[in-house]
Amino acid sequence: MKISELGQRAGIPLSALKYYQREGLLPEGIRSSPNQTSYGEAHVQRVHLIRALLQTGGLSVAATKDVIAVLDAPDAPIAETFRVAQHAMGTPRTTELTPSPAARERILALAREQEWCIANDNPGIDTAARALEGLEAIGFDAPADYLGAYAAAAAEAAGADLRALASLDEPDKVAELMVVGTVLGDPLFAGLRRLAHEDATTALFPVDDTNGKQP
Amino acid sequence: MKISELGQRAGIPLSALKYYQREGLLPEGIRSSPNQTSYGEAHVQRVHLIRALLQTGGLSVAATKDVIAVLDAPDAPIAETFRVAQHAMGTPRTTELTPSPAARERILALAREQEWCIANDNPGIDTAARALEGLEAIGFDAPADYLGAYAAAAAEAAGADLRALASLDEPDKVAELMVVGTVLGDPLFAGLRRLAHEDATTALFPVDDTNGKQP
Repeated sequence: MKISELGQRAGIPLSALKYYQREGLLPEGIRSSPNQTSYGEAHVQRVHLIRALLQTGGLSVAATKDVIAVLDAPDAPIAETFRVAQHAMGTPRTTELTPSPAARERILALAREQEWCIANDNPGIDTAARALEGLEAIGFDAPADYLGAYAAAAAEAAGADLRALASLDEPDKVAELMVVGTVLGDPLFAGLRRLAHEDATTALFPVDDTNGKQP
Repeated sequence: MKISELGQRAGIPLSALKYYQREGLLPEGIRSSPNQTSYGEAHVQRVHLIRALLQTGGLSVAATKDVIAVLDAPDAPIAETFRVAQHAMGTPRTTELTPSPAARERILALAREQEWCIANDNPGIDTAARALEGLEAIGFDAPADYLGAYAAAAAEAAGADLRALASLDEPDKVAELMVVGTVLGDPLFAGLRRLAHEDATTALFPVDDTNGKQP
């Protein structure tokens, strides 16, 4: 197909496709004549992936490029692919602060309680530790049952992620869902948690106005 | 205390304090003489809150200002405070795309299954729906058990959040933890989910290299 058809199939403007190509995210099509380049299904899939990482996942162009390079590397063991992708994705929004050793140690202790086998450089440690420090800054010293509930919730979601991966046949699809699921599981959970908050808050602190409520 | 002591107590440079004041986030101190302004404990707490929202939570200055205005409003019912704060906080990273009606409907159906009582304009609906669309874009049509696990995880975390709120005595502290906990619960969960991922992935796809692993 022509690049204009690729844009229609993927539902994005030509200018965005050219931008993806300039940034090295989307490979060139196959040159079928001096003035004509041809695109296939692999390009449609790639555009969907780029869009999911950049726009919905909120990754930078550089991080998106790193993640795609990992996905494209042949013969990488799948756990290694996941590890490299996790680091490439980093932890958006909270990269500028280094957490205190005490906050890191609380997260490591929590991981030991869960009997999680993890590397000391898993970027999740710093992400969670920084959140803990922010809670401590307003005087909330997250108690053990609070952290335990979050760890249980994380294990539940991660279990669902892994079952979804195990249900796929093609290695390419597994790697793709690993990466995209890691990025998009965060906003999926964040959105659902806000719904659960509203439900629980309404139950605890009823308001008179019931307009627009679901049954 | 003087503004220089406020900076020391809160652990941030004077330039940051002046920036917070210029942006209307931090109120002026009490003028104790024509050349002297005096700050109290409330200012220290406020600086911690601003820092948690801006830096760890990744909110914009405008969103931080909105959230603080809600916290400062007297006599607002607590459920209303929460609702306004949720909207002010919006949904970082994924605000630019409007999800399809089909994706929104899947999230609303999931909420009905959970018997959650929620408003149709809860911003979590769009956040979760956009994540769902991103997963669909790479061909993963999130099955019911996957979404159910995420909803259960969200309910578990939200339950811990509400128990933490119920443990506090002062209304000011409740409102503060509501807002900061809503923002920082996301990275706390995101970090822990990455740890749970590594644990589950290592179990499914063992690698030889065990350097740096926790027992």
